[in-house]
Amino acid sequence: MARQILWRSIAETLSGEIAAGQYRPGDRLPTEADLAARFGVNRHTVRQALADLVGKGLVRTRRGAGAFVASKPTDYPLSLRTRFHQNVLASGRSPARRFTRLETRAADLREAEALGLIPGAQVHVAEGVSLIDGQPVAVFRSVFPAERLPGLCAEITACQSVTMALSACGVADYTRHSTRITARIAEGTLALALQLREGAAILRSDAVNVDAAGQPVEFGRTWFAGDRITLTLSPES
Amino acid sequence: MARQILWRSIAETLSGEIAAGQYRPGDRLPTEADLAARFGVNRHTVRQALADLVGKGLVRTRRGAGAFVASKPTDYPLSLRTRFHQNVLASGRSPARRFTRLETRAADLREAEALGLIPGAQVHVAEGVSLIDGQPVAVFRSVFPAERLPGLCAEITACQSVTMALSACGVADYTRHSTRITARIAEGTLALALQLREGAAILRSDAVNVDAAGQPVEFGRTWFAGDRITLTLSPES
Repeated sequence: MARQILWRSIAETLSGEIAAGQYRPGDRLPTEADLAARFGVNRHTVRQALADLVGKGLVRTRRGAGAFVASKPTDYPLSLRTRFHQNVLASGRSPARRFTRLETRAADLREAEALGLIPGAQVHVAEGVSLIDGQPVAVFRSVFPAERLPGLCAEITACQSVTMALSACGVADYTRHSTRITARIAEGTLALALQLREGAAILRSDAVNVDAAGQPVEFGRTWFAGDRITLTLSPES
Repeated sequence: MARQILWRSIAETLSGEIAAGQYRPGDRLPTEADLAARFGVNRHTVRQALADLVGKGLVRTRRGAGAFVASKPTDYPLSLRTRFHQNVLASGRSPARRFTRLETRAADLREAEALGLIPGAQVHVAEGVSLIDGQPVAVFRSVFPAERLPGLCAEITACQSVTMALSACGVADYTRHSTRITARIAEGTLALALQLREGAAILRSDAVNVDAAGQPVEFGRTWFAGDRITLTLSPES
């Protein structure tokens, strides 16, 4: 049998077993050596089958740890009040956010426009990764008007939550004013941070959040792993 | 100079000229031979620079016709009443829809669930391509309950419009009940239909439209070219 037919057939067998629930999301698949023995092929052929399943989003590999059944995409409702923690908890999963960078600098043109600031005004920038059940699902960059929210960086450092930090700075509530969604390809550091292969699909969202008076308080750009998140909208939300 | 530095520098020069408006969206770039002469390099190096600009979404190539400056993405508002023609006209561009396939068949499980039908119920399926200013921006597949709308296929054939065909079948108005958005990679026939390279980013939307009584009348899946469409949401819409 040609090698291509071999690995395709192994990939189909494994994806059938995943679909049937024999392996469940998060389960570790047997090792390459075990799969090679089971199917009577060499490890190179097993690797091709696994690469095919990774490409289809059914399997994830972690260096040194093996291959795991990928989780189903998490529904992520875009509503007037979109909060990562509440969204993920509502889907029965465990949320976490890891801030990787906090800085105060001059706004670029796009940031100034989104926040209604003069170009060059100072902004706080918080960057990080959002995780669901320990798996990175999104990289975010949130930009805030620094003059309006002088103590924000200290509050984010203290409570590790944008919502709580804004509240501590006097923004008790904020709602989504506008959202822009597009699709991109994962490259370089973004692919690395999301544990995606280069060339994987990314769902990118730009959102402006405003306070009760309609003043912009946050301009957020989020890059979601396309195979892990489904953005959902409903008129009721 | 290393070839990589050469083509990067050419790509940067050209993207600067595009940004400065020296070449405008839709303009044809000089031929490979002309660019090679201008930069004093061979055509292979020019081709690498152009491929880089295509990858960045700044340039499109058409076989036999050359390289063109890509249009900026069109904003596509997702609102309660999302209509392709009106959305595109509102952005000052020219819309067109080309139906490529009309058939009546049994619903699959997902379609039956979305439309509230028993599995295996008959549905009309309309497939086609949506174009803006003559460029394909989306591939769509719309699924309708056949028992409820017996004459729909004939009406779509006659008027080449889903909205008008539904109106002719007694559905004077319909609104969006839910939308699910994810990112995918263009492959095979989809890449071909959208004139995208394989591996380009796709924005995929699943939407259920309901009539005034809240009954589902359409389940639509749309694959948007990620570099040509930005989906926008605002609380007011």
